[in-house]
Amino acid sequence: MKKIPYQTYLEPNELPRAWYNIQADMPTPLAPSLNAATNQLATFEEMSRLLAPQLVEQEVSTERYIDIPEPVLELYAQYRPSPLARAYRLEKALGTPAHIYYKYEGNNPSGSHKLNSAIPQVYYNQINGIRKITTETGAGQWGTALAVAAKMFGVELDVYMVRISAQQKPYRKMIMETFGANVIPSPSPNTKAGRQILAENPHTPGSLGMAISEAVEVTLSDPSIRYCLGSVLNHVVLHQSIIGQEALLQLNKIEEKPDIVIGCNGGGSNFGGFAFPIMGEQLRNGGLTSQFIAVEASACPKLTKGVYAYDFSDAVGATPACPMYTLGHGFVPQGIHAGGLRYHGDSPILSRLYHDKLVDAVSVDQSEVFRAAMLFAENEIIVPAPESAHAIAVAIQKALECKETGETKNIVFCLSGNGYFDLAAYEQFLSGELIDAPLTEEALKKGVSSIPQLAKID
Amino acid sequence: MKKIPYQTYLEPNELPRAWYNIQADMPTPLAPSLNAATNQLATFEEMSRLLAPQLVEQEVSTERYIDIPEPVLELYAQYRPSPLARAYRLEKALGTPAHIYYKYEGNNPSGSHKLNSAIPQVYYNQINGIRKITTETGAGQWGTALAVAAKMFGVELDVYMVRISAQQKPYRKMIMETFGANVIPSPSPNTKAGRQILAENPHTPGSLGMAISEAVEVTLSDPSIRYCLGSVLNHVVLHQSIIGQEALLQLNKIEEKPDIVIGCNGGGSNFGGFAFPIMGEQLRNGGLTSQFIAVEASACPKLTKGVYAYDFSDAVGATPACPMYTLGHGFVPQGIHAGGLRYHGDSPILSRLYHDKLVDAVSVDQSEVFRAAMLFAENEIIVPAPESAHAIAVAIQKALECKETGETKNIVFCLSGNGYFDLAAYEQFLSGELIDAPLTEEALKKGVSSIPQLAKID
Repeated sequence: MKKIPYQTYLEPNELPRAWYNIQADMPTPLAPSLNAATNQLATFEEMSRLLAPQLVEQEVSTERYIDIPEPVLELYAQYRPSPLARAYRLEKALGTPAHIYYKYEGNNPSGSHKLNSAIPQVYYNQINGIRKITTETGAGQWGTALAVAAKMFGVELDVYMVRISAQQKPYRKMIMETFGANVIPSPSPNTKAGRQILAENPHTPGSLGMAISEAVEVTLSDPSIRYCLGSVLNHVVLHQSIIGQEALLQLNKIEEKPDIVIGCNGGGSNFGGFAFPIMGEQLRNGGLTSQFIAVEASACPKLTKGVYAYDFSDAVGATPACPMYTLGHGFVPQGIHAGGLRYHGDSPILSRLYHDKLVDAVSVDQSEVFRAAMLFAENEIIVPAPESAHAIAVAIQKALECKETGETKNIVFCLSGNGYFDLAAYEQFLSGELIDAPLTEEALKKGVSSIPQLAKID
Repeated sequence: MKKIPYQTYLEPNELPRAWYNIQADMPTPLAPSLNAATNQLATFEEMSRLLAPQLVEQEVSTERYIDIPEPVLELYAQYRPSPLARAYRLEKALGTPAHIYYKYEGNNPSGSHKLNSAIPQVYYNQINGIRKITTETGAGQWGTALAVAAKMFGVELDVYMVRISAQQKPYRKMIMETFGANVIPSPSPNTKAGRQILAENPHTPGSLGMAISEAVEVTLSDPSIRYCLGSVLNHVVLHQSIIGQEALLQLNKIEEKPDIVIGCNGGGSNFGGFAFPIMGEQLRNGGLTSQFIAVEASACPKLTKGVYAYDFSDAVGATPACPMYTLGHGFVPQGIHAGGLRYHGDSPILSRLYHDKLVDAVSVDQSEVFRAAMLFAENEIIVPAPESAHAIAVAIQKALECKETGETKNIVFCLSGNGYFDLAAYEQFLSGELIDAPLTEEALKKGVSSIPQLAKID
């Protein structure tokens, strides 16, 4: 029997040179974004005021492959490919006949997959002569990634960091500053949106939606500034397709086919980047042969408990409205450690595919997530990010199901990042102080009531 | 012209299956350790009271290759090979015609090369039925590595952590605890050695030598406990040869020969592990064709300002005396951020090769180290450990010399670890608060006067 290695890499000449766009292969085309003020389709000009025009083009493109610019390929080559690992020790610890594989995106200073989109986003802004970029960050992975990319291309960066994350993760702030970024805890008194939120709730832990509102407001105040978003939007999912395309090549190399494909789900870019190239190949070949599972935090379950509607991606309605599963842009989740999953909405593409039942969704409690993370760390010699550990928890569930049934399924998940800046959360878990932060009916109701009454999604 | 990739890996079947022992190829054989009490050679029994017998055998072996046990190979395969990277962006930033390569050992939870020796050390103890291991750690890389390995093999671990490092690096303590280790800031009131040091100097920042004294004392108090050391000793250098052997294979793959081989030098295991397989091949082929440079901290310059003599590896004389370059076991260096380089002595093997002029040594100030580290981070997308940045600083010096002369030399260094738990040091540097910590004549004199009067080294 062939022995599959612990880690599979790719040769430099095997690396993908184009991003894969699942918009070319979706059964139902994606509904466009809306200008909420007019309830009309958002125009190219409106969107270009926030984003580099190339990114707006990618946002709406239905081309299957989009070439990766040479300067982006060069930077990818400094830290990619990421390894596809076989979790032999974890399998043994679980006593499962399943084969567990994970694609590990943590070997770069952002500690996560986020760098894959930060690099092209900064690149397109830099070639357009943009002086400064603004963004938001939750757990800090995205802010770090953008800080690295901004340094590489010599562009200034302001990061609005969710307040509770800034408090819990001082090292995240430090690494962004090491790469030259200006880090502002959000909500802040710097912006009108921040002042308004602070006036209503001075002790708010903050949220990604609030931080986005601040970053967008700063962008709109100065024509030499543009905004970058770390997930949700189609162009971010596109850039992350580098993960799934590499995984496909690596799986081919070891002659394995995935039965179950799992990713955690915050704004959908890690899930989509990993799963969509695999899904797209199956769609083109006649239909899905894998189960695809998006795993969300039970504290922020937009797919399993949200509404499919047009909603804002920020907290105050400054952005175009996206067609997505959402808990409402006014939803404020509990302060769980997986800051990257504390986002009210989801990728429009992932939302559409979930609505069309090509993707399954499950939610997991924080305590189960950390138990899974510890078991993984103790066997696979990587401390996972709390976000990524959501995928681990479901991979373990599925592996234990295989133990019951005796099936040798191939379970493949994206380990989107490491948890070396989340160790305070692990200490809390180990000392028994970690609590679950379940969704309350009241918070859900309050969130859903904030969804604007706009056009129906076709 | 061939295009050398940014990163070169090895296929699983290309990985080395034996460690390389330079004792087989040294021009002058190594002098043995001494029992300081008797001024006689340390016996196998004496050394086995501290270390697993297999490790004592490796300590004195002159076999060229020693097979790596299968369980160790399996764990190596979970995070090795480490990449050999070409620093194209750094070369361009420097405007040098030199080719700069680095072997990056940071992609594992210890953040450094230390895991390469932690795994076999715990393995040999575990198969001997040892219940608990004690050790010391400075910057925390070694303690983390041993915590990971102890967890893998189910052995208990007490880590005596140099007090100033425990204060400066809270995340280091947390990650050791995440992997189940018991972390004790040193000097501590737990041991006689610790109490004695605290009585004399209650505010001491601690040192590796002091922490070793404590760990050794605990080991000698209970026959089911053994001690593990993260550097200096021959068996540690042996285990680290996995680095240099991989590097040789990777350099062969890209058809490059090293002109200058650089490593930072704390206790010598990262330098030796990287450089000795390269040096050994050259010695067997008729003589050195590379320059080998060990880089030390100017605050702790054992090779450039120390004495070649028998000295203790701990602070109070509880261990056998080693033939080495030393600043004296009573030497206490300034509290620089490169905690792993704050050790009074050096590897006996490296000391011998330096004494025989096969290795050059230079020392670098902390401020130059951090300038080099920042330039590296901004180009190579890795934040280096302050220890490893000593090697970067000299690689940059040499690359700038090539710029002067127009020579296209191949400069190859070991990037032994990352600096993600050292970000507070980077913050200090960026805010202009980092100071150099030069060696004073008084500290040097005090240290050297602590060297015991034992046998002369042949």
